[in-house]
Amino acid sequence: MNKEAIYHRPKDNFAYAYDNETLHLVLRTKKNDLEMVELVFGDPYDWIDNQWQSVSKHMKKTGTTSLHDYWFIAVKPNYRRMRYAFICSNEHESCIYSEGGIFASFPSDIANYFCFPYLSSIDVFNAPDWVKDTVWYQLFPERFANGNEQLNPKGSLPWGSADPTPTNFFGGDLEGIIQHLDYLVDLGINGIYLTPIFKAYSNHKYDTIDYMEIDPQFGDKATFRLFVQECHQRGIKVMLDAVFNHSGYYFPPFQDVLKNQEVSIYKDWFHIWNFPIVTKPRPNYDTFAFVPTMPKLNTKNKEVRDYLLKVATYWVETFDIDGWRLDVANEVDHHFWRMFRQAVKEVKSDVYILGEIWHDSMPWLHGDQFDAVMNYPFTNGAIDFFAKQNMNAATFTETITSVLHMYPQNVNEVAFNLLDSHDTPRILTLANDNEARVKLLYLFQLSFVGTPCIYYGDEIGMAGDTDPGCRACMQWNPNQQKQELYRFVQSLIHLRKTNPLFGNHSDIQFLQSNDASNTIVYEKNDGHHRLVFFLNAGEKEANITRDILRISSCKYLTEWHIQNQQARKYRIDELPTSITVPPLHFRIFEIV
Amino acid sequence: MNKEAIYHRPKDNFAYAYDNETLHLVLRTKKNDLEMVELVFGDPYDWIDNQWQSVSKHMKKTGTTSLHDYWFIAVKPNYRRMRYAFICSNEHESCIYSEGGIFASFPSDIANYFCFPYLSSIDVFNAPDWVKDTVWYQLFPERFANGNEQLNPKGSLPWGSADPTPTNFFGGDLEGIIQHLDYLVDLGINGIYLTPIFKAYSNHKYDTIDYMEIDPQFGDKATFRLFVQECHQRGIKVMLDAVFNHSGYYFPPFQDVLKNQEVSIYKDWFHIWNFPIVTKPRPNYDTFAFVPTMPKLNTKNKEVRDYLLKVATYWVETFDIDGWRLDVANEVDHHFWRMFRQAVKEVKSDVYILGEIWHDSMPWLHGDQFDAVMNYPFTNGAIDFFAKQNMNAATFTETITSVLHMYPQNVNEVAFNLLDSHDTPRILTLANDNEARVKLLYLFQLSFVGTPCIYYGDEIGMAGDTDPGCRACMQWNPNQQKQELYRFVQSLIHLRKTNPLFGNHSDIQFLQSNDASNTIVYEKNDGHHRLVFFLNAGEKEANITRDILRISSCKYLTEWHIQNQQARKYRIDELPTSITVPPLHFRIFEIV
Repeated sequence: MNKEAIYHRPKDNFAYAYDNETLHLVLRTKKNDLEMVELVFGDPYDWIDNQWQSVSKHMKKTGTTSLHDYWFIAVKPNYRRMRYAFICSNEHESCIYSEGGIFASFPSDIANYFCFPYLSSIDVFNAPDWVKDTVWYQLFPERFANGNEQLNPKGSLPWGSADPTPTNFFGGDLEGIIQHLDYLVDLGINGIYLTPIFKAYSNHKYDTIDYMEIDPQFGDKATFRLFVQECHQRGIKVMLDAVFNHSGYYFPPFQDVLKNQEVSIYKDWFHIWNFPIVTKPRPNYDTFAFVPTMPKLNTKNKEVRDYLLKVATYWVETFDIDGWRLDVANEVDHHFWRMFRQAVKEVKSDVYILGEIWHDSMPWLHGDQFDAVMNYPFTNGAIDFFAKQNMNAATFTETITSVLHMYPQNVNEVAFNLLDSHDTPRILTLANDNEARVKLLYLFQLSFVGTPCIYYGDEIGMAGDTDPGCRACMQWNPNQQKQELYRFVQSLIHLRKTNPLFGNHSDIQFLQSNDASNTIVYEKNDGHHRLVFFLNAGEKEANITRDILRISSCKYLTEWHIQNQQARKYRIDELPTSITVPPLHFRIFEIV
Repeated sequence: MNKEAIYHRPKDNFAYAYDNETLHLVLRTKKNDLEMVELVFGDPYDWIDNQWQSVSKHMKKTGTTSLHDYWFIAVKPNYRRMRYAFICSNEHESCIYSEGGIFASFPSDIANYFCFPYLSSIDVFNAPDWVKDTVWYQLFPERFANGNEQLNPKGSLPWGSADPTPTNFFGGDLEGIIQHLDYLVDLGINGIYLTPIFKAYSNHKYDTIDYMEIDPQFGDKATFRLFVQECHQRGIKVMLDAVFNHSGYYFPPFQDVLKNQEVSIYKDWFHIWNFPIVTKPRPNYDTFAFVPTMPKLNTKNKEVRDYLLKVATYWVETFDIDGWRLDVANEVDHHFWRMFRQAVKEVKSDVYILGEIWHDSMPWLHGDQFDAVMNYPFTNGAIDFFAKQNMNAATFTETITSVLHMYPQNVNEVAFNLLDSHDTPRILTLANDNEARVKLLYLFQLSFVGTPCIYYGDEIGMAGDTDPGCRACMQWNPNQQKQELYRFVQSLIHLRKTNPLFGNHSDIQFLQSNDASNTIVYEKNDGHHRLVFFLNAGEKEANITRDILRISSCKYLTEWHIQNQQARKYRIDELPTSITVPPLHFRIFEIV
């Protein structure tokens, strides 16, 4: 047995409260090394006649990555506290793994056992309930729709008349979005994430000038209020972008420092190394990356903190927004984010707090800071396998299995699963303009646990390379829209919202991956129904053995057809023993 | 190579800010599996000509446990942020380990690298500076000294006239402690930790009746104020015990609930499952363990939280105490402890916050909750090896190496290292009345990194089994005190305070352990000097080869003699090649 590879440490994704009475426990072991894992647990204080009252339960293997297996169990300890250990067994040997190390038999001193001291409900990770049923739509306001030409910035180009550049303008605005809300309703969207709308210099508005004002090219506060109301009437939540890591160059406090240098009353609002301030060859102050026009804000400074917290609560309190997406969230201190959560949840308890973090984000997801992060590890795997074809099927299933085991289940349920954004090429372009690959991406994304986000225009087949290419004007000419793709996405969203097992159910597991055919098979299981997905990301017809469906005890099964929203019921013996999946296509079976 | 055993995850004890500019990185690998580990790192945004500007540095193997090796490096990234990976090599192969997994060559996508996004000074773990130079003395007020017989509880017994029982009283009080402060100064103590002194029912006072009053058997607020002043005049810090997990049975709010049941205004101050309240066979409300007289406080309730935070700040603000030891700290919610830290540090920024947690406490030691925990894993190892002799030398060094690698270095520097307490048998009793073993324990404790605590009376050789045996009246009769033991402890404390390398220097590493002779050799190294400790916990003379001192390039070395506080300088060739350590004795060499 590879004992060195066995890993568990309480809290994080290994031992956590799923809800007010349930603990989830996860053990990591070497791939294919163990045959059985049991959890042994009991109350820390439950000693009768000097005997510890413990019980043991089998854990379930929930996934395998390139190197490891993961084992899972959910338990409800009577008094919301427990000491525990794991019995690890394979055909050669058996051992006890606990906080004190590896033992041949149960250690007698309870100090050797892992401890979950007390399940305090106030510490349970608690993202808003509505999030896991939300399908987001990310929209870049300057490029979605121009509803009021009066507001156009000087030199704006006619809608769609040119390729997007880092500096051109087309006059997209809030009125334009309002005019097209019913388009989003028709698609099935119930959450809009807007990239920044506060007064800023650039077309992307990530270089804020005034956090308390709507950029005049987008409208005014009255229009924004109307926008939120129109969204809410349609059951659509609204999330804004908080760029709190850095300000823009023209943010008045930074301008004051540039002007007054060390005597500026704002000099401690930033991280300035020495005076006079220079910007070349590199700035002598902390910035986002090395961008001189994005000076990093000093959130350790109470004045800055108070100002940003005022901004954060103002837009929630005054305009009733439903979420904040936090730009470059990982480079701002944890201390600030804890205060941020406390402040915004106090004015609206079910605000969604979404951090932009591209890497392992466990330290921000303990319930005291964010509700979710942008799930780029999911994005990267899906794009590499389905679109770019530079990842094989086995690596893809291992990668997604890693993603699923990286965080607690209640975190996964509200993960923000995107396929692309204003910071990446569009999926159609990533898929080399292959629409069938885009469909597979959407099927995978919309059947996955978490809260999916569609980048504006992808659903009608817009193409575009990385920034600025991905920021083109929304195509409103129906003849230029891929209507069949739109209807496919619409059907998936409808399914997601009407069938919880297809939608946000979190028990998802890969059954097979085949590198030769580029096929994967995965299952969602709620204990009553199972949905089994066969996806063929290869260019040839694939044949997958029927056995994988594990239907020996069933008489019937149902196949779903997304395009026509119909289902066909089969007698098992009608289904051939080898199931054919056309190239770049999929089949979905429901088993009761 | 055992790739499955390689482990690192940013934050916790694996990647953390040691100070405002230094990151510490730790990698765990299978024991004796790798020959070399290098850290490859660079700024996440530092790309010149599309090339990532990274460098590599060798990591140092800092310890080996029963299954794993630990590798360490400290780095100061230019812009306080970095992406990184590890190159793991042995004679057979070499691989790259990073967030994306194991790679044969450097992954080109930076998303695959581990990330430390930004070192924010406000997030750096920052225990008070004074703690690491403190030698604590834990004292049980009812049993240290009776300074005012007028205050004796009814039925108090004459001092030391009987064995301690769970219910008897001897009249120890604050005046008694004040009268003996110079005894503590003489010993070298500069921190006193008092078990609870607030009004309570029992002799141990862990069943609080009034958190805002001194128990009348100990004195009043004026006497307590004088006590703190007298301590501070002598350079002694004062730490009180905060029993916030549960109240006592006679705490008026609980009495109110008992009386008024579900109509009590205090019913939500506790966790009551249903009414009427019962205590048998087990209480129908949450308690400490299953003790009906210790009802658990509901710290989720804002009223309770406000009340306890008022208590916490009151004693700091009004009486200038220096620390809070938090009873059963692991069973109270993290949310409460974060508010507790904020509240007490606001009134006195260098208060020490010490949690009572017996198991792995990483989740409380990220800088947002506690400064330290009671280091029982250290205690258990030291007691098992030196006193109880039920752990061999190899297991002991592995256990202590685990303890050293369980937390960040700045956490270890203020760990509360105790050998026994009011909750365990006394060390002399644990050592089967063998004074030489007690001396080895003290030598190990007082030369170890962290802040040591001496339990009252141990220094003069008091014996006593577990509670109530360990709570006997302090022996003040000089003829009954082991004076030589006292002087030995006094000398060690003096050394600790005058020689930082002997004292709290944190670079400590085991050089050898021998199960046959029960000997260990460890070294402390500050880059200039080295101190090498030979400890023989066996009953026979041991001979240890001189080579272990690694003195081939030196001409001289110095041997320290604790008893007479002298040192003897040797020419290397005067030292025999085999160094003799008498049974249950030790030798200490200083090498420049």
